[in-house]
Amino acid sequence: MDEAVKRNNSLLCIGLDPDPALMPPGVSILDFNKAIIDATADLVCCYKPNVAFYEAEGARGWDALKQTVEYIPRGILVIADAKRGDIGNTAKAYAKAIFDELGAGAMTVNPYLGFDAVEPFLNYKDKGVFILCRTSNKGASDFQSLKVGFEGKEMPLYQVVAKKASQWNRAKNIGLVVGATYPDELKTLRLAYPDMPFLIPGVGAQGGDLKLAVQYGMDKRGAGIIVNSSRQILYASRGKDFAQAARKAALKLRDEINLYRSAS
Amino acid sequence: MDEAVKRNNSLLCIGLDPDPALMPPGVSILDFNKAIIDATADLVCCYKPNVAFYEAEGARGWDALKQTVEYIPRGILVIADAKRGDIGNTAKAYAKAIFDELGAGAMTVNPYLGFDAVEPFLNYKDKGVFILCRTSNKGASDFQSLKVGFEGKEMPLYQVVAKKASQWNRAKNIGLVVGATYPDELKTLRLAYPDMPFLIPGVGAQGGDLKLAVQYGMDKRGAGIIVNSSRQILYASRGKDFAQAARKAALKLRDEINLYRSAS
Repeated sequence: MDEAVKRNNSLLCIGLDPDPALMPPGVSILDFNKAIIDATADLVCCYKPNVAFYEAEGARGWDALKQTVEYIPRGILVIADAKRGDIGNTAKAYAKAIFDELGAGAMTVNPYLGFDAVEPFLNYKDKGVFILCRTSNKGASDFQSLKVGFEGKEMPLYQVVAKKASQWNRAKNIGLVVGATYPDELKTLRLAYPDMPFLIPGVGAQGGDLKLAVQYGMDKRGAGIIVNSSRQILYASRGKDFAQAARKAALKLRDEINLYRSAS
Repeated sequence: MDEAVKRNNSLLCIGLDPDPALMPPGVSILDFNKAIIDATADLVCCYKPNVAFYEAEGARGWDALKQTVEYIPRGILVIADAKRGDIGNTAKAYAKAIFDELGAGAMTVNPYLGFDAVEPFLNYKDKGVFILCRTSNKGASDFQSLKVGFEGKEMPLYQVVAKKASQWNRAKNIGLVVGATYPDELKTLRLAYPDMPFLIPGVGAQGGDLKLAVQYGMDKRGAGIIVNSSRQILYASRGKDFAQAARKAALKLRDEINLYRSAS
């Protein structure tokens, strides 16, 4: 990923979430993705397909997902946004599905089941594992904000997740998912974990503040964040110009991110 | 499901988790599942395919999963063990994948993202949603046991999840996943939620105590639990007699469950 960050001067990730209700009519998922990738591959550091949108189309969807992953140029990280979490032998099957079968370079994982549900993913030491910490949605507060007693202190659950994640991070392949919609939490987490990569969804359609997300999320090197946008870019136009419109939106967002990077 | 519970006098669910490393050599996933279903359909109330084992085979795996679901006789509930959880529009795509595309009658859902991540599943009012509460694995304690301040009291996180789930349960289509490996938690939850169905994994290979699981988990009608077993039944033999061996193991387990039911 570092390669694409430098070459494309970009911390932007595009979420490849093909939603038939929003896509240009008559375009297949694979053709849509290919057009988006062709139009934006020099502007991003990652692509993040959310597996849900492919599974919604069944086996054909999985084929389209796999072909999409294969189509993404080398040097650009593919994060499969799968949010998986299951007990040991099953987590192993999920890791096989996402890393071996699909060929993604990283994935998102849900921590609720604890260490033995995360470990099989971590065992792929050359793959990235982004653990859900503070998600971008409104309901995130239902559990993630609850005050928890941990190691003699009281802290919100998402901070315990971050702490555990940092303890599990022996192979240095763990990152955290922290929504741009919660800038204060992002700040707190960056202070506590100066070296961990953060995957930041929630700008654009979800209303997160980009400036704060960049300022608070960045590490000391002016990097360490991956800012994801999906709908704002993919569906900038629903006409025949959808790919050009996506490029324009991606360029604007990449440059905005860089503006806030250099201002900090 | 109630139909199969009565007709087959059974609270047994078989987890259809086809693992090539454990399956009889040379048998395809679909043929394996069909043989298991043919041999056990009069002994169970549900089948629970864990989606991971199918995804590990890519698009072919999804086809096999779909054909397996279609093959299961009517009246027997199919619980897709998918443990999904994602933000609103993505959760909607997962619900479409599991309920519409795959045709499962119920699924498992991860609560970490909060209400808006669970709601799209609940909106399928004629489908069942089993929320992960106290999972059967060892690492479950990493987060689920943490003491949390909630509504002025202190309680473990899994109890907050159960409480929230009961508040979300307007369409009466929510159940809880509670591992047989944690009988005390099962008892506490049954006392607090006398009417909610519990999906109970963790007997057999994972070492949960069946007697306690039945005694503590049952509701006042002597039902309300679905006891899942996967490996103990599927892999009772790896020879040509695998289906007959599975039947024998399923029959034994069903009758044991009934023995503990009637003893209570």
